[in-house]
Amino acid sequence: MKVLRVELGERSYPIYIGSGLLKQAELLISQIKSKQVLVVTNTTVAPLYLDSLLNNLSSYQVESIILNDGEQFKTLDTISQIFDKLLSHRFSRNATLIALGGGVIGDMGGFSAACYQRGIHFLQIPTTLLAQVDSSVGGKTGVNHPLGKNMIGAFYQPQCVLADADVLDTLDNRQLSAGLAEVIKYGLIRDSEFFSWLEQNVEILLLKDKSALAYAIEQSCRNKAEIVAEDETESGIRATLNLGHTFGHAIETGVGYGEYLHGEAVAIGICQAADLSRRIGWLTDTDVDRIIRLLKAAGLPVTPPEQLDADRFLDLMAVDKKNIDGQIRVILLKKIGEATLPTSVDSGLLKQTLMEYGRTNRYQ
Amino acid sequence: MKVLRVELGERSYPIYIGSGLLKQAELLISQIKSKQVLVVTNTTVAPLYLDSLLNNLSSYQVESIILNDGEQFKTLDTISQIFDKLLSHRFSRNATLIALGGGVIGDMGGFSAACYQRGIHFLQIPTTLLAQVDSSVGGKTGVNHPLGKNMIGAFYQPQCVLADADVLDTLDNRQLSAGLAEVIKYGLIRDSEFFSWLEQNVEILLLKDKSALAYAIEQSCRNKAEIVAEDETESGIRATLNLGHTFGHAIETGVGYGEYLHGEAVAIGICQAADLSRRIGWLTDTDVDRIIRLLKAAGLPVTPPEQLDADRFLDLMAVDKKNIDGQIRVILLKKIGEATLPTSVDSGLLKQTLMEYGRTNRYQ
Repeated sequence: MKVLRVELGERSYPIYIGSGLLKQAELLISQIKSKQVLVVTNTTVAPLYLDSLLNNLSSYQVESIILNDGEQFKTLDTISQIFDKLLSHRFSRNATLIALGGGVIGDMGGFSAACYQRGIHFLQIPTTLLAQVDSSVGGKTGVNHPLGKNMIGAFYQPQCVLADADVLDTLDNRQLSAGLAEVIKYGLIRDSEFFSWLEQNVEILLLKDKSALAYAIEQSCRNKAEIVAEDETESGIRATLNLGHTFGHAIETGVGYGEYLHGEAVAIGICQAADLSRRIGWLTDTDVDRIIRLLKAAGLPVTPPEQLDADRFLDLMAVDKKNIDGQIRVILLKKIGEATLPTSVDSGLLKQTLMEYGRTNRYQ
Repeated sequence: MKVLRVELGERSYPIYIGSGLLKQAELLISQIKSKQVLVVTNTTVAPLYLDSLLNNLSSYQVESIILNDGEQFKTLDTISQIFDKLLSHRFSRNATLIALGGGVIGDMGGFSAACYQRGIHFLQIPTTLLAQVDSSVGGKTGVNHPLGKNMIGAFYQPQCVLADADVLDTLDNRQLSAGLAEVIKYGLIRDSEFFSWLEQNVEILLLKDKSALAYAIEQSCRNKAEIVAEDETESGIRATLNLGHTFGHAIETGVGYGEYLHGEAVAIGICQAADLSRRIGWLTDTDVDRIIRLLKAAGLPVTPPEQLDADRFLDLMAVDKKNIDGQIRVILLKKIGEATLPTSVDSGLLKQTLMEYGRTNRYQ
């Protein structure tokens, strides 16, 4: 087992990474500071892991809530169901909420924990690669709004994260690939060595080689933890984690939540950001080809959905959180391993990317 | 104009107290750090002050939302309307939300500001005495749930608070009295000198004497700011601000939000807490009489609603945020001017208070 620490002063917390962590009752129990525990999970994860988790918690007053699975349920209405559960069982401000699931469960569990009685204890047990390498690190929680993704939320740090590589055994290939999109992102924004390692190891990652997966999780969490420690509330460098996300969120909102997995939309967005970076003159054709090739090798889509034309993209991108006073800003790449801060780009070049990239079948 | 500072490190902020502050456009403008401004207000306050506020903001991209007036509208559904407004006008993370209204507007405005894009700028212009002396100081924001008051929320500090005594001219007497309940509370929990001053001056306060009101606002805000500076997230001394609130919240929830004003329910709750403190042996009969007499003189109710019997009270009090692992805890008085931290009390004595206090017509 590896232990990484996210350094945030009095809000610092450990991430435990390894195999078989979920079975170690003592590890979990050592992190719980209350008698009352609510487990928040979903219809996909509950049949796989809920019972064994509850068995480990038999000495607590424990309740669980099983939500519908999918980004389309990441709403204030679902959060309200969690509050109903907590209140009807009279959970106090000293209670603990455990999020057992992927990024959607982590985001909603965290936001509920942040808001219930203005904040209760919160533990994350991410069950997808995406959640292990991304959403469980850094304290971003929240829900979607029909007019924009993740528009409602809070910064709220967990007490700890348990990232158990064993749970990836039950993860389907599409979800695994979606997680790899964020893994590849870390290489692109700040770790060219890791990017090269991924080019060499993408096949065995898809075959769920435990040692390769554990290394990828660890490197991803390390990169993210370093960024978050430097800039918790995204006033600077943390925004680079949004590479591909401005485009990606537009895809998710425009096509409807649940159609694309978050990682899939981000993969397409990374390609669009790379294409725009090439047009500005920062990336070479070879760089862009390497990026697209690796994402494709990871089983990810690399072309934007046909039904979203450039104007619709611009419209959707106008509500991104990085924008200031209405101006669209995106994260771009100076080179493989170096990202820009949010950048206002020439609208002509942006429109070229939106109209031309992936519309010519070149990368399909 | 007086300026009090709430000392909370990087979240410190000023409270401006005086007459005619709303008319001073420069004061307001100097506090706004963005182009986009949303004013959140309600149907009672909007006809009185919204236009003049908007006139002062003509150089901004300003929108306003006018909510229904009343505690019964302090819900997640109403918060959702605020998010709709912010998103449909594409407000960015750099926007400012101004809460113009009483405590309900401040709580909802603050919670929306805390959650919108995980936090935007927030200014408070409280228009009731209650909001000026209580809810606008200290960063508690949130909404009610059918099963409990203020159960969903965040700690979120404003950029500044403008407490303009002139707005109390349009406040009805019932609302003024409700504000005095919290003013009297400060005297009770930590400032016996202020309590005595209130006994002397309650009549001229009810006549809206500006200088007396300004003094009462200042002393109240000073007391609260000192407590909050010491304990922002209520791990200790801040809980004393809840004197009367455990009983009071039970009344509000049990009778239905909107029937009693918050300050009215708190006034009854203070009497119940005083009665319980007497039964424990801390307060004398004379102390309890002084407390009840002052609250009555301030125009406040002092007996619990008949339809809530002791068992229903206990049931409702069981979901209070101060409870730990299901045990009811209340704030009590050691003497006039000194409160206890949350205290688990002998259930027999608590039941005696609930069954006997105010049920015998003694104080009606």
